[in-house]
Order: sequence, then C-alpha cells, then structure tokens
Amino acid sequence: MNPELLLSRSDLDFLLFDWLQVDTLAQRPRFAGQDRFDYASVLDTYARIASERFATHNKKNDSQEPHFDGESVSVIPEVGVAVRAFSEAGLMSAAFPEEWGGMGLPTVVERAGMAWIMAANVATAGYAFLTIGNANLLMAHGQPEQVAKYVPAMAQGRFFGTMCLSEPQAGSSLADIRTKAVPQSDGRYRLFGNKMWISGGDHEVSENIVHLVLAKIPDANGQLPPGVQGISLFTVPRRLVNEGGSSGERNDVVLAGVNHKMGQRGLVNCLLNFGEGKFRPEGEAGALGEIVGEPGKGLAYMFHMMNEARISVGLTAASLACTGYLHALDYAKTRTQGRTRSQRDPASPPVALIEHADVRRMLLAQKAYASGALALCLYSARLNDDVHSLEGEAARDDAHLLLELLTPITKSWTAQWGLAANDLAIQVHGGYGYTREYNVEQFYRDNRLNPIHEGTFGIQAIDLLGRKTRVHQGRAMQLLSARIAPTVNAAMHVSALQRHAEALEAAWVKLWTVTRQLHALDDAEAQLANAGPYLEAFGHVVAAWLWLDQAIVATRLLAGPDGGDFHRGKLAACDYFFRWEMPKVAAWLAVLDPVERTPLDTPAHWL
Amino acid sequence: MNPELLLSRSDLDFLLFDWLQVDTLAQRPRFAGQDRFDYASVLDTYARIASERFATHNKKNDSQEPHFDGESVSVIPEVGVAVRAFSEAGLMSAAFPEEWGGMGLPTVVERAGMAWIMAANVATAGYAFLTIGNANLLMAHGQPEQVAKYVPAMAQGRFFGTMCLSEPQAGSSLADIRTKAVPQSDGRYRLFGNKMWISGGDHEVSENIVHLVLAKIPDANGQLPPGVQGISLFTVPRRLVNEGGSSGERNDVVLAGVNHKMGQRGLVNCLLNFGEGKFRPEGEAGALGEIVGEPGKGLAYMFHMMNEARISVGLTAASLACTGYLHALDYAKTRTQGRTRSQRDPASPPVALIEHADVRRMLLAQKAYASGALALCLYSARLNDDVHSLEGEAARDDAHLLLELLTPITKSWTAQWGLAANDLAIQVHGGYGYTREYNVEQFYRDNRLNPIHEGTFGIQAIDLLGRKTRVHQGRAMQLLSARIAPTVNAAMHVSALQRHAEALEAAWVKLWTVTRQLHALDDAEAQLANAGPYLEAFGHVVAAWLWLDQAIVATRLLAGPDGGDFHRGKLAACDYFFRWEMPKVAAWLAVLDPVERTPLDTPAHWL
Repeated sequence: MNPELLLSRSDLDFLLFDWLQVDTLAQRPRFAGQDRFDYASVLDTYARIASERFATHNKKNDSQEPHFDGESVSVIPEVGVAVRAFSEAGLMSAAFPEEWGGMGLPTVVERAGMAWIMAANVATAGYAFLTIGNANLLMAHGQPEQVAKYVPAMAQGRFFGTMCLSEPQAGSSLADIRTKAVPQSDGRYRLFGNKMWISGGDHEVSENIVHLVLAKIPDANGQLPPGVQGISLFTVPRRLVNEGGSSGERNDVVLAGVNHKMGQRGLVNCLLNFGEGKFRPEGEAGALGEIVGEPGKGLAYMFHMMNEARISVGLTAASLACTGYLHALDYAKTRTQGRTRSQRDPASPPVALIEHADVRRMLLAQKAYASGALALCLYSARLNDDVHSLEGEAARDDAHLLLELLTPITKSWTAQWGLAANDLAIQVHGGYGYTREYNVEQFYRDNRLNPIHEGTFGIQAIDLLGRKTRVHQGRAMQLLSARIAPTVNAAMHVSALQRHAEALEAAWVKLWTVTRQLHALDDAEAQLANAGPYLEAFGHVVAAWLWLDQAIVATRLLAGPDGGDFHRGKLAACDYFFRWEMPKVAAWLAVLDPVERTPLDTPAHWL
Repeated sequence: MNPELLLSRSDLDFLLFDWLQVDTLAQRPRFAGQDRFDYASVLDTYARIASERFATHNKKNDSQEPHFDGESVSVIPEVGVAVRAFSEAGLMSAAFPEEWGGMGLPTVVERAGMAWIMAANVATAGYAFLTIGNANLLMAHGQPEQVAKYVPAMAQGRFFGTMCLSEPQAGSSLADIRTKAVPQSDGRYRLFGNKMWISGGDHEVSENIVHLVLAKIPDANGQLPPGVQGISLFTVPRRLVNEGGSSGERNDVVLAGVNHKMGQRGLVNCLLNFGEGKFRPEGEAGALGEIVGEPGKGLAYMFHMMNEARISVGLTAASLACTGYLHALDYAKTRTQGRTRSQRDPASPPVALIEHADVRRMLLAQKAYASGALALCLYSARLNDDVHSLEGEAARDDAHLLLELLTPITKSWTAQWGLAANDLAIQVHGGYGYTREYNVEQFYRDNRLNPIHEGTFGIQAIDLLGRKTRVHQGRAMQLLSARIAPTVNAAMHVSALQRHAEALEAAWVKLWTVTRQLHALDDAEAQLANAGPYLEAFGHVVAAWLWLDQAIVATRLLAGPDGGDFHRGKLAACDYFFRWEMPKVAAWLAVLDPVERTPLDTPAHWL
C-alpha cells in the first residue's frame, strides 16, 4: 500500500521537527550523538516496513482471524513475518537503551514511527507494542537477571509479551482479582487463577510469550488480602526458559478460549487459565513465575506499563484516524458525483466529491480530530522524554506530573474523536464505505476498542477529575496553565488567531473554575457523577490549545520561503476546530456547573 | 429470544395508546370496525413472530452471509421460513386495503409491529419491508392489471420486491443514470443497464422478485434525456409471470456481484445487470418490463416509495437502538463490578453496574435517543394515516406537508442518535460488548448503514433546509409551529416541565429565525453549506418537543391510579434530554448564525 495513505509524512515532519523541535533533544546527554538525519531515516524504515510488511495483510488479518481448535490457536503466517522484519530492523528496541541492544532513540521518535505500523495493521502492531511495553516495565522494575533473561529475547522478537490484569469476575475492578501466587522454596511462585482479555495471550508466532501477571500472595491463613494493596506482579513465561536462554517445556498456562472481536481481529485475545496442571506432572500444578520487584507493589509497577499502554491506545486511535482521513481524502478527490449548487445543468459533467462543501466539512473534521490526536500523542511522548532526559529532578518531576495529567486525555480524547473521524471516513465513502471491499469500515471496527480497553472512558474520566487534577494541590493544573499561557500570548499577536486565543483563554479559565467547584463539593457521588462530560470538555480544551500552538508555527512558516498549502491546511484545520468544535465545550460544562443530577437521582428501577 | 429484550411493550403501548391515541383512528371511516383490541392482538402477533422466527437467526444471518458462487446466491434457509411465517400471519399486507387482501390497519399500528421485526433481525426484515414498500407504490401508481399481477403475490410472500435506483457511476445523483428502456410494439419495454446497491436483488428465497427500476426512454435520436425529468419507472420481474400468475422463465436480469457489508449482512445487496442477454434467445436481449404510470414521472412515483423507505430507515434505526438499550439495561442490572464512590471497602461485595452514575448516564442517553426515535417514527406514521384518513382535502394536504417536513428528520435524527445509542450499548458492556459473543456490536454494525442509504445524511440536510422548509412559503414550518405551541402551553402549566417548555420555545424561535436568515441569503453555496448542523439542530428541537409532549401525558398518568415507575422513567428521560442534549443545539447553530465559512472557503488542495 502507498505509505501516503497510511500517514502524512509532511504532517509527521511538521509535528516532530517544526512544532515539537524534537531534534533539539539531541543536545541532551541521553540522546547525545543523535541528529535529525537519524530520526528521519528511522522514520523511513518504519514507513517502509509498515507499508511492505504490515499493511499487506491488514484485510487478511481481519477476515481470517485467529482460530482456536480447542488445543491451540492458529494465526496467519504473515503476522510472524511482519513482526520478525520489524525486530530485525531494530524497531522493537528502537527506544531501549543501548546497554540492552537498543538504539536509545527518544520515545517521541519511536512513537511517531509506531504510528506508521499501527496505521498499517493495528492487530499485528499489537503484538509488537505489547512486547515493547512489557520490556520497558521489566527494564524499569525488574531484577537485573529478569531483564537479562527476557528483554534481549524480546528485542529480537523471539519472545513476545502480554499484560494479564483482568479476570472474568473482576473486569476493570482489580481489587477483586483472585489469582493467587504461592511462594516456593526456590524463591519462585506458583500461580493459580483465570485471566481474561489477554491480547497476544497464546499463539505460536513467537518462540515464547512472557506474561506479566497481577496476582495476590496468600497470607499465613491462606487468605488473599483484599483491595489493591495486596497485588504483586510476576513474570510467567509460556515456556520455561532454559539456562542459556532457549525456551523449554510448557509452563502451566493454558489457553481456555478466545474472544471474537468486532475489530482488531488479527490480535488474538484470550482467556488464560494458570495452574490447571495440564502441562505439569501430577501434583506439580501451578504456573511457575518470578516476582517483579517487591510484593504488594504490583499495581504500581503495572501502571508503568498501563500508562504507556494508555498512550499507545491513544496513538492507535490517532493512527487509525489518520489513515481513515487519508483514505477519505483520496476518495473524495477522485470519485465524481453530482454537481455543486451553482452548477445545476444536468448535462454538465459531475464534480469530484470534494467540491461539495459538506464533504469538505467532513474532511476538515477528520483532519482536526486525526492530526490533533496525533499531535496530542506526540506531545505526551515528548513529555515522556523530558521525564527521562531533563536536567534537574524538579524539572523531571514536573514533566512527570504534567504527563500524568495528560494521560487520560491522550488515551480518551483520541479514542473518542479518532473513532468519530473513522465514522466520517465511512460517510465520505457513502455506500462503498459500508462494504468490506473498501478499507474504512475496518478502521472503524478496529478503533472501537480504544474507548474500552486499558481503562474505559468512564474510568479515565474519574482518574482525571478525581485524581490527576487534584494531586499535589492541583500542581499539574498549574503546570498545564503555564504551558497554555505562552500559546495564548503568542497567538494574541497574530491577528488571524487572536479570537481563537481569546476563546481558548476563556475556556481554560472556565474549566479550571469548574474543576475547583467540583473538587470543593462535599458529596463524593455528585463530585464524580458527571466526570464523563468533564473529560470531554477538558479534552477539547487541550486539543484546541495544541491546534493553536501549531497554528502559530504554521503562520510563521507560511511567511517564510517554504510556506505553502500544507500550512494553509493547518490553519484551516485550526479554524475549523475553534469555530465548529469549541462551541461544544459549553454544552458539556452545562451539566457540571452546577452538577446536573438526573443520572445521579434516577434509580435503576425507573429505567 | 425474550421479546422484552427486543422492544418494551409498555413503551409501545404508551406511545400508541396513551400518547398518540391511535385507538381514536377507528372512529374514521377508513378504519371503521377496528378497535384497540385488534391493534393489541396484531402487535402480539408481530412480537411472537419477531422473537420466534426472526431473532432466532439474527446472529447466523450475520456470520453466514449470502454467498455468491458466480452463478447464484445462497441465503440461509431461516430467512425464507421467517418471511413465510410473517406473510402467512397476514403481516405483509397488514396495512394493505382489504380489497387487496390486507387487514386495512393504520400505518402507525403496522409500523409499530414492524419495529419488533426490525429489532429482531434487521436483515431478514429488509426483505419484508422492501416488499411492502414496493406493493404500496404499485397500489398508489400502478395500472390495475399491474397491481393484480403483483400485489396479491407479494401479500402472500411468494413475490418479493426491490427498488433499483443507483448505478455504479451515478450513486446518489439520479440525474446521471444511464439505464435505458426501449419501447416494444406490445406496449412493454426492454431494459438495458447496471443497477447498484440493490437490497434483496437476487436470491431463491421467494418464488419471484419484482424489481422497480428507474430508467430513461431514449428520444427519437436514441439519446437519453438529461436530468431527472426524463426518468420513468418500470416493473421488471426476475421471472416472467405466466398467465394465471405463476412464475415462468428467467427475465434478462443477471446478478453481477454482491457487496460485503459491515452489517445487515443477511440482506443480500447486489449489482444487477439488465439486458445482458444471458437468459434470452439470441437477438432478444433486454429485460422485459412494464411502465408504471406515465413516462417521465418515474422519480415522483419512486419518491412515494423512497419517503416510505426513509421512514422505514428511521424505524430500523429506532428499533436497533431500542433493542440495544434493553440489552444494555439488562446487562447493567445483572453484571456486578466495582463499588460506588461512597462504598470504598474492598471487602464489600461489588455492586451492579447500574449503581454507577456514569452507567445510568449512558442508559438514560440511550433511552432518550432510542425511545425518542421510536416516538418520532410513530408520530410520522400517524401523520401518514392522517394523510389518508382525515376528513377534508385541506386537512389531508396539511398532514402531507408536515409529514414531508418531518421525513428527513425521521430518517436522519433516528439514524444518527440510534447509532449513538448502540455505541453506548457497547460501552456499557465493556470488553464483552466488543465481542461477537454478545449482541450489541452487531446492532451497531447493522445500524451504521442507516445514515447512508435512502439518501445520506448530507442529502437529507439539503432536502430539509433547501426544500422542505421553503415550499409553499414555509407553510410546513407554520404547521409544525402550530403543533409545538400547544405542547409548550400545556407544559407551562406543569411546574416540573415549565423550564423545559421555555427552553423548547426559545430553541424553536431561534431555529425559525435562523431558517429565515438562511433562506434570505443570496449566495446559493453558502445557503446550504452548513445544512448538516442545521439538520442536527432541527432534529434535536423536534425530539425535545416530542419528549415534552410525552412528559405531559406521563405527568397526568402518574397522578392517576395506574401511574408508576414507568412514568417516572419517562419523565427522567425527558429531563435528561432537556438538560444534557438541548445545550448542544447552540453549538450547531453557532455555525449557522452567521454561516461559518471554513468548509466553504477551504480549497481541496489545502487538505
């Protein structure tokens, strides 16, 4: 597939280099010796592998989903070929430190590259990004021998990784998990329990699979501690790892079933049983695992991966939105149909769809959502680099706090509006868009998972309003405010952007006021009852800020020698966002100031 | 399947009898001799056949879609069994006049019944409702011998019907169709051309298929007349009909391919070639057809069926929204997960999902959209009965004008928000909702067609703003205003509804003002450029009016002996709609007053 139907390289270059000035990262010790040329050429590699290895089986991945015959699951061979090519090009470990065989690239560059892979084939990309996240967690929290055992094999693509959190009875409520980890005399643990929704949970695509499993260690009476404090984290390989690193006999982890999803069908999603005894000698049941870090800190460690996964979810949503937009744009420019309002002669030739104002409205909306979502994800990834590379602990802590604040938005705003973009991509295609002969309906189905997994929209909303905006006396809000202010000030000096700047400032002030009011409520239920529209309003304000910030750069470049239609298109998308999208913020805030109580006060039996 | 997961009978009874007072129709000569008991028992029949014959293969219809082997298409046998049971119960002809073997029921009762069928299996229902629409068109515009030839066979379910409008090169632009109809010496025509998107276009489920085909009759020079004025309408049976009514040899209509849809997979969708000569002796190519009514009036006749089809599309969307809501409600009441904000003890048992305010918010939104959409469809169906049964031509003309005004809203508002309801039904189910092991993701996929077919959202918007609100000096708007006013007045006297009444009145006044401003613009492109948000705003105002009108009835009944939680739930949904949904109207109107020009002024090459 033409890589220009996956992502716009012009947009990616603008976002990375003109806007986020990623090349300046190379001035920091962590990225010493790197330069823009390195970044550009690794992006070329991602784009090539995405179009040549991933996009090529995206439809097949969807129509021939993994099949479970009761014993094992079969995945089409193209998946393994693609992930091996990805690993062999060094992309699995692109952002790993050099000591673990990585390229040591900034996260923001690696994520920009991953956007190509996700746009090309979100299901196959899933195997890779779960493995990367798993390795990152181990490098951050694992014992050195754990890292040595698993991470290089993951970098090579020999081992894949998973995250095992949910259980059938517990869903999103991790306090209620029942998987238990029984200590053995050799320092290892035997795990028993059932895990649900495990992406990449079982297959033969890789030589081995490293499960990161949340479980509880029973107390002296054999009881599992209640709540999340009792949760620990374990590495549980599908096959036990021999001395020397090769994969040996099967561990006691059994595939109990696969889920048949609406989309992302090529990424096998499993119910796994730990400790059934199937692959073990009589009396030796229990999946052998090693604890990661200290007991009782499992959830904190897992949130390392979860937060990364949440930004990855956002990036998936953004990537699908981008490719959907590019497909719709291409279709609208080539498909002819009907006539404009001013040309009513039925004997005149029909015009391209894009000549209809309503089609351009749908394209502008997609651009505003898709490219806005990509900008937000890259902004967050850039913050993640700051967390690890800024000079001074205070600066790094601040970057971390701001990243934590933006994480639920990076996950949820992108998922919601990326999906809306894919919906519009179908609409631009008309009836064709509704058929599997075209690509866009799959993008929609693939993207529909994103407001659900790694913390639903509702959970992200509670995280934002109930925690992220409150901690450290609202310091994260102050940090965000300190970033919005210079954008507003700069835009005030650009006449075409002045009204947008005023609108953004007013929306931000209002949002912050509402935030304080909500925090001050003494009714815990009322406080968070309408967190959903709060997240929606917050997300739109953040997206508006980033659009305005981009518009300042685009205005400057447009006046220079390389200015052109690309920059005019940026400004049009910014205008669209402010004029068409920002009025929605008032509608969301209308149920927060004061808290509208209908959902709160309607008892179940009235419904 | 439990019929209470398809539709709420309480809601249907409330809408039909308490609100629309459908039983009073029996006082009119057209419906003389009928009563509420008749209506209730025929609804029982629909509900029974829906749950016993249609719902039972809804999933199979989706996973085993019609298969085209290059010669013919195979459809699972359950489809034929269901439609035959439907016909044998008299439901195909429930609203046909008795002279054609029908029950002569009001349309509103028949449509309420069809909602059960659509909620149970939208794909199989499609064969039935296309056949009903086809027969209705023939009864309205066909020659008596045409009606006699086809309609009784359709009533029996022996013949199915289709509508053949689109062509591959023309899409929604019917002026550009190229199918030609060449007159024969015997008064019949031979048709040549390709038709696209033909639902139910080929199969062996019924003995025969009656295609209603738009085509152009060449002029003396063999040229096809340009524009829509040259379009005529023809009946073209798949098999020629013998004397006596049996189906004979194949007509010259060939299945050229099937589309593989995102949803509604069980309803075969075809590309048909007319006049290829495949089934005809050498030199006798051409699909034999009979003209309906007069030449050149084809589009006007087809709009009889199209308008009915548009209301049916709305009803499909509403039905899918209703069943999705009932599924989500049932799941939220039974699935336990997490704890409320005020109960943080992790050792306490988890609560039902519905105990979370955000879940109730999603349920209330679904109820507001789904039941609101059903109300709108039934209101339109009731107006259709008025068109045919009111005393006095002026009253009938007025009902017709108002129905015409409400048709694009009945089609599009329901499609947009019915889909939004299904999206929320998935979200309430969490990860399970994303799997095909549950039902709700199919509802979403099935419903996604509705903003596209029978005139896309954009086309409906132009129809509303450019035509329906303008014709006869805006008389339809005056008629609608005259219906909104008494609702506002009555609600002003109910203290709990007074603020809603004020909000509705203000929104209506504003909408009408904006309408006049837009009509007065002398820039044709600008006038209709933002018709999309105009339709959205208009739809929400109409839905708010109908919710308020229902709330007045619910308030009265709640005070009576039969008042209860059902009526409290109605009032909660009305509150929700006014407080959470109505603030969106300002956001849509923000781009209409004045016309926001970004989509209009952004040239294609900036995108």
